[in-house]
Amino acid sequence: MNAPDARRPLPAPLLEGLRRVLGERLSTGASVLAQHGRDESAFAPMAPDAVAFPNSTEEVAVIARLCHAHDVPMIPYGVGSSVEGHVLALKGGVSIDLAQMNRIVEVHADDLDVVVEAGVTRKQLDAELKGTGLFFPLDPGADASFGGMTATRASGTNAVRYGTMRENVLALTVVLADGTALKTGTRARKSSAGYDLTRLFVGSEGTLGIVTEVTLRLHPQPEAVSAATCQFPTVREAVETVIQTIQLGVPIARCELLDAASIRAINRHSRLGLEETPMLFFEFHGSPSAVAEQAETVQAIAADHGGTGFEWSATPEERTRLWTARHNCYFACLNLRPNARVVSTDVCVPLSRLADCIAATEADVQASGLPIILLGHVGDGNFHLGINVDPAAHGEMERAEDLNRRLVSRAIEMGGTSTGEHGIGMGKLEFLEAEHGAAAVATMRAIKRALDPKGLMNPGKVIPA
Amino acid sequence: MNAPDARRPLPAPLLEGLRRVLGERLSTGASVLAQHGRDESAFAPMAPDAVAFPNSTEEVAVIARLCHAHDVPMIPYGVGSSVEGHVLALKGGVSIDLAQMNRIVEVHADDLDVVVEAGVTRKQLDAELKGTGLFFPLDPGADASFGGMTATRASGTNAVRYGTMRENVLALTVVLADGTALKTGTRARKSSAGYDLTRLFVGSEGTLGIVTEVTLRLHPQPEAVSAATCQFPTVREAVETVIQTIQLGVPIARCELLDAASIRAINRHSRLGLEETPMLFFEFHGSPSAVAEQAETVQAIAADHGGTGFEWSATPEERTRLWTARHNCYFACLNLRPNARVVSTDVCVPLSRLADCIAATEADVQASGLPIILLGHVGDGNFHLGINVDPAAHGEMERAEDLNRRLVSRAIEMGGTSTGEHGIGMGKLEFLEAEHGAAAVATMRAIKRALDPKGLMNPGKVIPA
Repeated sequence: MNAPDARRPLPAPLLEGLRRVLGERLSTGASVLAQHGRDESAFAPMAPDAVAFPNSTEEVAVIARLCHAHDVPMIPYGVGSSVEGHVLALKGGVSIDLAQMNRIVEVHADDLDVVVEAGVTRKQLDAELKGTGLFFPLDPGADASFGGMTATRASGTNAVRYGTMRENVLALTVVLADGTALKTGTRARKSSAGYDLTRLFVGSEGTLGIVTEVTLRLHPQPEAVSAATCQFPTVREAVETVIQTIQLGVPIARCELLDAASIRAINRHSRLGLEETPMLFFEFHGSPSAVAEQAETVQAIAADHGGTGFEWSATPEERTRLWTARHNCYFACLNLRPNARVVSTDVCVPLSRLADCIAATEADVQASGLPIILLGHVGDGNFHLGINVDPAAHGEMERAEDLNRRLVSRAIEMGGTSTGEHGIGMGKLEFLEAEHGAAAVATMRAIKRALDPKGLMNPGKVIPA
Repeated sequence: MNAPDARRPLPAPLLEGLRRVLGERLSTGASVLAQHGRDESAFAPMAPDAVAFPNSTEEVAVIARLCHAHDVPMIPYGVGSSVEGHVLALKGGVSIDLAQMNRIVEVHADDLDVVVEAGVTRKQLDAELKGTGLFFPLDPGADASFGGMTATRASGTNAVRYGTMRENVLALTVVLADGTALKTGTRARKSSAGYDLTRLFVGSEGTLGIVTEVTLRLHPQPEAVSAATCQFPTVREAVETVIQTIQLGVPIARCELLDAASIRAINRHSRLGLEETPMLFFEFHGSPSAVAEQAETVQAIAADHGGTGFEWSATPEERTRLWTARHNCYFACLNLRPNARVVSTDVCVPLSRLADCIAATEADVQASGLPIILLGHVGDGNFHLGINVDPAAHGEMERAEDLNRRLVSRAIEMGGTSTGEHGIGMGKLEFLEAEHGAAAVATMRAIKRALDPKGLMNPGKVIPA
């Protein structure tokens, strides 16, 4: 699968050209190369041949022009928190690390939007927005960069209320394979002016161009926020609570399911003392009375489904502690065994199929014998398995892959998708055609060829060769 | 502008092939051709050479294959309610009228989605959804088809709360120029699986393919709905009320501005007795207490900006009467003079620029001397002029076009767009590059060529030749 072509060393004139532009900001040091050839996935690392650290769109354009002239692959790099092998240099080439493009260009508080460079991370933006009364809601587990979040069409725990990067990116600056820079979209809230290039680049995983600047929608800080947890005898009853909540139109801001194994893992990792049974974490945003009303409605629905111990997180500190623990689930899973890696699954199905999908998956989890946690953004129909594998242990990776393959097939049969928020990368390539059909994949390939005829942009990702 | 190429009659083998498939559902009768060569715009009609009435995706695919083999243009047709000349057969060819594809394929109430054929209209869907507790919010003025609404990325009065077709289309069935049928997207709420073909076809105005089936998000009927109107001394004060409402995060469902001329026109057209001064129409959706709270907040903001006569529409009948009058604004404008046409402008700007954009526009409106109404979905920063023109009167069309040109330039300078919801069609072609830049338009053109190398899909629309 995805065996690298024979790699050639970078042409000397390319290296000279890059060094002329970037000076010390071009690196071929072994540790820098190694760091840029791996992510949080369990795939074996594959280092690039050089790493460029541009500090402007213009520099990215020059780098692309040079690589294009020499037929050398380019791999955009954010913080390396991908879980699908997005940043691995399968065919060598130049990793373009956008970390130095970390300026917050313009905050338009009156328009509820902000322009950031691709290297800005979500926590950096959080800090910048303090005091404006606005926030950016999406929160993938890692402190990802906005370039990376755009590239993978990321979301997180708030998507049920605020949408994903698809809904929250207004405009982009992108550099194409040949070094052409272009802007997509405007700061207007809606537009019918031409093809939706913004949405085409959102989720294209660096295979159509390099995102250098992102205009994001911001949202007013809710007047009141409250969080609650609730325990359930089984995962199915928790899921049914969520389904009914959504169907009733309760505008919950967050709604996360953690199975007993997840609670056990985060109790250990984050030193909490939660009861080790399936739980829902809720968050409510709105006016104080709206928040209270939403919580009452949800509590009643939960009680109808065997939910017990509906408990308020009275203080912001308590709330933060719970959500931090939730966000650290990945690391909690990683730390279940020493020297482990996590294979993270990411299916998303229509809500009505979610309980069945999870039930069938739980049986597979039992049968696998691997340490596995199940958790999810169940309001969207999206859930993850964190499969703890020891890559050195005989057969473990294969068992994890087999489990994922069964899960993805099940999700696609149910009208769902192989990936709700992580992206295709190299990890889900084999499922693209089963999900979309040959004609849709051929159409994606035609677009790829039109924008990157030499196939230099992050080769081996998204579109099967 | 957009002069048609010399038109050739349709090749006899094509007509024979089409007739073999469609029988009586292929028409070359003069009145049918004439009806399919015009829309609600002021452009001079241009009839197609034949009209096909397919009743399945398979038939659309056969039609496309035949037209493709004979290099004949195809123009998808919904109900003809476009205002930018979308359905005009600039280079002749076959109009593909999807009216007979009007089945509601599947209602998934539990998943809050529905699959409809492209010819289903929004009022037809409204009727079908009665009793399900769900609704589809978007409401362009006309009783448009979902194929047409998808093609133009339409929205309407609810977009401030529920988004546009961009946010409310989950999946599509599309037939490409060569007759390939494909499905885009799934019924999952979110996905990171490959390029976002759904969003690429939404807003492509029939230039990349023919939409034959649409999967739409539905929304739970709000527990309570209330409407209110409020009068203002000036348009600016009304707009400032809206801006502050949005910035505070009040989740208003609708918020429409009508200037004094609009009120005058609808008083006359719909026999109402509203005071002829700028007005805001609001609608609030939520629980009874949330709705009351939202209305109180908005009333207080309005009062701060000189708003008076904040009045509830106590009954559903009263509410319907007001909103029907609002929806009939287009016809109210059309009927200001006999034998008139309406040139409808459609800019959308960042909220912070809206008051200035409207103020500068009002001066232009005064100077034009034409009968003009101004109204808008101001919560999105989107507003329309309805310019009543007599196409036979010397210089009126030119004055309307000049006014629009100044307005669009102003909007683009302010970071906005030439069209918030009507589309480019042939009417806004000249502005595409000013808005997006040459590189973005070249990228759109590359995509067009990749998907429709012969240039047969709705030629002369969206992408300047």
